[in-house]
Amino acid sequence: MSVYPEAGMRDFVLPDMAAIRAEAATVDTRAVLGAGVDDVGASRAAVALALWSDRSIGTAELQALAEERCAAREPRLHTFVPLYTTNHCDSECKMCSMRKGNARMERKFSGRNEIIEQMEILYRHEGVRGIGFLTGEYEDKYTRLSTAFRIGWAMRTALDMGFERIYFNIGSMEPDEIAVLGEWIQRDEPVTMCVFQETYDRESYRRFMGKTSVGVPKADYDRRVVSFDRWLDAGYRYVNPGVLVGLHDDLDAELVALVAHGDHLRARGAVVDLSVPRMRPAMSSRDSTRVNDDDYLRMMAVIAFVCPEQRLVLTTREPQEFQDRAIGMAGVISPGSPDVAPYRADSQARNEETTSQFLVADLRRPRHILGRIEAGGTPVGHFANPSVGAAVIPIG
Amino acid sequence: MSVYPEAGMRDFVLPDMAAIRAEAATVDTRAVLGAGVDDVGASRAAVALALWSDRSIGTAELQALAEERCAAREPRLHTFVPLYTTNHCDSECKMCSMRKGNARMERKFSGRNEIIEQMEILYRHEGVRGIGFLTGEYEDKYTRLSTAFRIGWAMRTALDMGFERIYFNIGSMEPDEIAVLGEWIQRDEPVTMCVFQETYDRESYRRFMGKTSVGVPKADYDRRVVSFDRWLDAGYRYVNPGVLVGLHDDLDAELVALVAHGDHLRARGAVVDLSVPRMRPAMSSRDSTRVNDDDYLRMMAVIAFVCPEQRLVLTTREPQEFQDRAIGMAGVISPGSPDVAPYRADSQARNEETTSQFLVADLRRPRHILGRIEAGGTPVGHFANPSVGAAVIPIG
Repeated sequence: MSVYPEAGMRDFVLPDMAAIRAEAATVDTRAVLGAGVDDVGASRAAVALALWSDRSIGTAELQALAEERCAAREPRLHTFVPLYTTNHCDSECKMCSMRKGNARMERKFSGRNEIIEQMEILYRHEGVRGIGFLTGEYEDKYTRLSTAFRIGWAMRTALDMGFERIYFNIGSMEPDEIAVLGEWIQRDEPVTMCVFQETYDRESYRRFMGKTSVGVPKADYDRRVVSFDRWLDAGYRYVNPGVLVGLHDDLDAELVALVAHGDHLRARGAVVDLSVPRMRPAMSSRDSTRVNDDDYLRMMAVIAFVCPEQRLVLTTREPQEFQDRAIGMAGVISPGSPDVAPYRADSQARNEETTSQFLVADLRRPRHILGRIEAGGTPVGHFANPSVGAAVIPIG
Repeated sequence: MSVYPEAGMRDFVLPDMAAIRAEAATVDTRAVLGAGVDDVGASRAAVALALWSDRSIGTAELQALAEERCAAREPRLHTFVPLYTTNHCDSECKMCSMRKGNARMERKFSGRNEIIEQMEILYRHEGVRGIGFLTGEYEDKYTRLSTAFRIGWAMRTALDMGFERIYFNIGSMEPDEIAVLGEWIQRDEPVTMCVFQETYDRESYRRFMGKTSVGVPKADYDRRVVSFDRWLDAGYRYVNPGVLVGLHDDLDAELVALVAHGDHLRARGAVVDLSVPRMRPAMSSRDSTRVNDDDYLRMMAVIAFVCPEQRLVLTTREPQEFQDRAIGMAGVISPGSPDVAPYRADSQARNEETTSQFLVADLRRPRHILGRIEAGGTPVGHFANPSVGAAVIPIG
């Protein structure tokens, strides 16, 4: 069914956990810390599992080594701000306020003018040059194609306005949907597909996303997990897989799957960002697990160390205090709000429970968050601090 | 619920047929033919019914008088070509191949590039400057809003490309949907909403469009019939109601309803076109009545005579021979194909049964149809014959 430009390329297949455990048992973790990940003759997934499991290596030590690797990247950090263009959704994910059955959600839709207005606020008043477009996921083909059309238009408009970096997160995508979206961009423009698997465990996936994909688009695990392969088949390069940390209890398995997925995509020539968001308060209908700070930092450290060319995305789901602890392992800092069209020229973003996917921990304005990071000595790519040159561009 | 800019304006209400019949019985038809429709102290609907019913007045005589009125209009004729941008539809209209349940229909969707390519073919190779955008009608709010967005974009793109006149036919519209579409245009741009009621008879409407509007958007008679009122509420002016002649057997009632609807809209300040298409072969699931040529010409003559400032739309549903007989009563000539993206630079349009709403009777190229009308002495507005200046613009 699929066309693979690279000879022998296959869709991502989840590695066998028992085999990875056996392989991890052979890894000399101390040697890895000295020699480098790709020189020890084991898969990255096995190396990650070995480092994660070897509690004789402290998290602080792992983090310091990870930060050293991240500090070598250029640019050290870049940014994008999420823009939810609607909170309509046909899926029924139990952890998500946008799920179709949530009657308490007030549904919103941004048309042409609101999308342009939001982009202008982000560009002029927040000074960001990276933007991510989000929607729900939809069931029928016509609606999926129409969504691809609208988000394609938004991308083109953003790039023409001067945005340098685009992300989009609109659910799984099939080839015809990628074609409709792709007509708006060039293959060499930096446009990143985000399709977080949330959990790679099929049983946990079913528990949260639904038992059947009839009428529930996100419940189709397989379509979701190969969306990046379809994107690469079509000639695009930028991808961003992710795990919603806390959905599935077995962090070993999630870590192995995510590292393996990133490695598969890298082998196909992709530029890979990785997301490991932690659950936030939302109008959820099923409880998830709160992963503690140490485990969470350790997971980030292992990923950042084992996948040095892949950027971890840090968001304002985490409070400022935690951001400060983790920022050295991040490659992307993404401040913003998961409300629909929430940005304002002269005040912080809105984040109402009745219209947002979830509530963030940190509603400081993007320019404040990014300006503070730069003031600390770390330049942020795709950020042009509006406070510099304030005499020229008045900021509300 | 609604806001009426004009004091005392109400939504269209179907006139009482018995009252109109009684009023029509008082109309001196011969006096009408001499004096003028609006000078006899009766409603236009009653005058139309009186003229239609008085078989002592021949159809040829009525047609000659109607043609005289039409000849006084400037321009005498204008044109637009329909462009179906998809054949996906959530409705279940029994006379329509696009109905959701028609498993034999191969569904198509035009993205950015195909829409632009089709517009360029129509502009450069057919020389038309009027275009009509069509879709199915959709059930859920998000899909309806997404459709309004895509068609709004298409309108803006067409106007920016040099098209002078836009029609759109995308089903009933609610105020929020009109707002999303309207963001792409200015209120003084000539953009005509087409929402044909098909039949004004509620029982026939239910028979063809469905008994319940749950899951079947077009089955909502009331939302459909007031769509123009919502369009005018929002400050737009151009409207095009219509009857699908043959759905409902009682032509008296259809004539009265359509004339009354046009008159209501005119009273609200609208610029009104009227459509009275006859059924064409399609993958229908219920038979309709074939109205004979004489009745059909008489119906057109009555409407053209009674509503002199309202333009009848003539299409290539009718064969060339019938077009020639009716063209003198038309104000709009609309050649084209109800297939998705059917136009070709160097050949006639496609009109495949498996992808078209119906099969037209006349697939001659628009420029040939329009050029022939102009060669006969009638200039056609929104047509720039590509054969003139062929040395400059090569035509395939």
